[in-house]
Amino acid sequence: MNIYKYPERNEWKKLCQRPQLQTAFLDSVIQNILSQVQKCGDQALKEFTSRFDRVNLSELTVCSNEISESEKKVSNELKIAISRAAENIHAFHALQKWEPEKIETMPGVVCWRKAIPIEKVGIYIPGGSAPLFSTVLMLGIPAKLAGCRQIVLCSPPDINGDIHPAILYAASIVGIEKIFKVGGAQAIAAMAYGTESIPEVYKIFGPGNQYVTKAKQLVSMEGTAIDMPAGPSEVLVLADEWADASFVAADLLSQAEHGPDSQVILVTDSEPLAAKVMEEVNRQIFRLPRKEIAAEALKNSSVLILNKTDAIAFSNAYAPEHLIINTTDADILAEQIINAGSVFIGPHSPEAVGDYASGTNHTLPTNGYAKSYGGVALDSFMKYTTFQKLSAAGLRTIALIVEQMAQAEQLQAHAEAVSVRRRNQKICNQ
Amino acid sequence: MNIYKYPERNEWKKLCQRPQLQTAFLDSVIQNILSQVQKCGDQALKEFTSRFDRVNLSELTVCSNEISESEKKVSNELKIAISRAAENIHAFHALQKWEPEKIETMPGVVCWRKAIPIEKVGIYIPGGSAPLFSTVLMLGIPAKLAGCRQIVLCSPPDINGDIHPAILYAASIVGIEKIFKVGGAQAIAAMAYGTESIPEVYKIFGPGNQYVTKAKQLVSMEGTAIDMPAGPSEVLVLADEWADASFVAADLLSQAEHGPDSQVILVTDSEPLAAKVMEEVNRQIFRLPRKEIAAEALKNSSVLILNKTDAIAFSNAYAPEHLIINTTDADILAEQIINAGSVFIGPHSPEAVGDYASGTNHTLPTNGYAKSYGGVALDSFMKYTTFQKLSAAGLRTIALIVEQMAQAEQLQAHAEAVSVRRRNQKICNQ
Repeated sequence: MNIYKYPERNEWKKLCQRPQLQTAFLDSVIQNILSQVQKCGDQALKEFTSRFDRVNLSELTVCSNEISESEKKVSNELKIAISRAAENIHAFHALQKWEPEKIETMPGVVCWRKAIPIEKVGIYIPGGSAPLFSTVLMLGIPAKLAGCRQIVLCSPPDINGDIHPAILYAASIVGIEKIFKVGGAQAIAAMAYGTESIPEVYKIFGPGNQYVTKAKQLVSMEGTAIDMPAGPSEVLVLADEWADASFVAADLLSQAEHGPDSQVILVTDSEPLAAKVMEEVNRQIFRLPRKEIAAEALKNSSVLILNKTDAIAFSNAYAPEHLIINTTDADILAEQIINAGSVFIGPHSPEAVGDYASGTNHTLPTNGYAKSYGGVALDSFMKYTTFQKLSAAGLRTIALIVEQMAQAEQLQAHAEAVSVRRRNQKICNQ
Repeated sequence: MNIYKYPERNEWKKLCQRPQLQTAFLDSVIQNILSQVQKCGDQALKEFTSRFDRVNLSELTVCSNEISESEKKVSNELKIAISRAAENIHAFHALQKWEPEKIETMPGVVCWRKAIPIEKVGIYIPGGSAPLFSTVLMLGIPAKLAGCRQIVLCSPPDINGDIHPAILYAASIVGIEKIFKVGGAQAIAAMAYGTESIPEVYKIFGPGNQYVTKAKQLVSMEGTAIDMPAGPSEVLVLADEWADASFVAADLLSQAEHGPDSQVILVTDSEPLAAKVMEEVNRQIFRLPRKEIAAEALKNSSVLILNKTDAIAFSNAYAPEHLIINTTDADILAEQIINAGSVFIGPHSPEAVGDYASGTNHTLPTNGYAKSYGGVALDSFMKYTTFQKLSAAGLRTIALIVEQMAQAEQLQAHAEAVSVRRRNQKICNQ
């Protein structure tokens, strides 16, 4: 980790930079995969699965037998943990249900909004060594709560043609039934266009590697919505002299182990704390199975010494995906946060609790997007439609306003749509 | 307008197609404008303004004098209309304020969300013959209500170097102070990157021609959020035999006059009504100043004869930006709508009232995006940050769940961030 003592404001922009993934070169590779899937459907999916996942599948659909078998392969301890986490996630997202009132903006002019679930959504869950079943909960639970009619889940098969049982188990307790063995860009293509086996969806959620990210970006330009732009994961820890250095170090490492392009930032007004944390990081990292990855990530990472006011200002400029405030005045500082994905307040709130089980969503804006985006929420699976209903009297009340404005915008037909009704005898008599 | 009687379901996909704008060829032109503005700032803006708007500006910023002068140039009638519309828009969007509650998902584990305004937003208002001051209200009012600290408005100058007084007047009553004379892709670049005069923003809103749309698309790939993907405007009218053909025709024409690539669709179960509407369209169009534009748009447009069940199903498949339900059972049909931007219920609710004054927002998803997007709302100017605060006891309650799940995902450092706290004597004694 690089240490910066009281950097000037004009250096902050550079300090806010994330490791850049170069993905432009992937455009044509991924575009080709998308076109193949669009053209050849399941056949293309099977060929790409054979090539990339090294397994030949006769059937892409996970059958109900495989799902019920998965239950036997997951330990009881893990099952209990998953259920408890699912309850918390359910409770937190259920609280987000909200039906706005109707309003009569003028006599006879009634307007309202209605939250309508997105009918068809897709969830992508990466495969590989670490089965991200927690993401199944984070995306599947709000999708179900929103009332999406069709939820499709795609995840790559392993060398034996199986999806990890913990993923299948999590999907089954959430109530997702349409699960397909396909990963990578070809899975994104399948959900965007639909194939013989896999239904088309209107919005695709979920993390993935650079191929998946690029595919999501490309299909989003063609009309399929995506959850949010993706970048490597990151944490910023604000700590003061009272923070326990071993906690801070563990929090930094828990983010660093995600991937070599992760970034972790410590901002503190205490040089002694900074020194202790760096010592602790060096001590704790050797215990980690993913120490090489974490060590790579630490190279992109920094320690900043800043007074408390500047520390908050820097955090808001950085707009971290995860922000841990481990200070004695954490509650007060939390009030001053305007740009962050999820905030963890006080010494007992490690980021890991939000990654799994506190109830908040772990699909969060990275790469500074927290300046303009929030994380995945119930609303991510819904959209609001506005409605208005005017009585004849309501139309008469508003008519002149609309006619004046439409004429001033030189849109005469807009004015006419009102005038034709005003002139109509039937209305005048009502 | 082309008429289709009882088209088969497999023909619907084709009938749902919108006129396609080919914009890929614009990539390099627009990318060049973006790069120039990023590199040369105000100087580049002035050069592009000279080239595209044919006016040499010494100053890009609209001064307070110009704003106060604008008030004198707008008629009293229009001022009153604008104020009344602004009140309705304000009332409708103010009702969308909502602070969700805190929840204790487990004893000692408190989670909540907070709506935080996007600090810096930009509004683009097209210039040209029709001054879209209504869009200033539709974007400026919710931006102010949300509490965005910095609102920038860009609009191209006319040949005399002025922005239309109705636009300046609308901006002044909304309370927007930072107004700049710059249009096209260069305005989008200025707001995305910032220049000497124009501050950088985090999210850009507003309609525009194909150059503006392409520029918004390109900057959105680089990190500046945008309101939504844009396409030509459209309306679908559901009508039955009881609808007044002159109303339906006027509604279709009010949309058709927007641009030659607009699309209007009439869906009805009544062939006689369809015939009468087509007659009325041919009669009314000759009165319109923009009849050539409307006639072009009608070439992309269709009349579909479908029974009522299929009519609703088709409307949901088409996912119109605007949907007018002009039937005797309009309220019942409105309940069945799952994909639409804004819905106008009954004979007295022309789309034009929503375009200007009913209170709902007129920035809506086009091109089928209503399947996954809602229109601009108060929330478009905010983002939700999640917070969690655990007590020592709360951490102990949740610790095992997090450890189990993290270990199963092979993320040992995540488990450690919890374990290190659990092992800590200070916590155990609390």
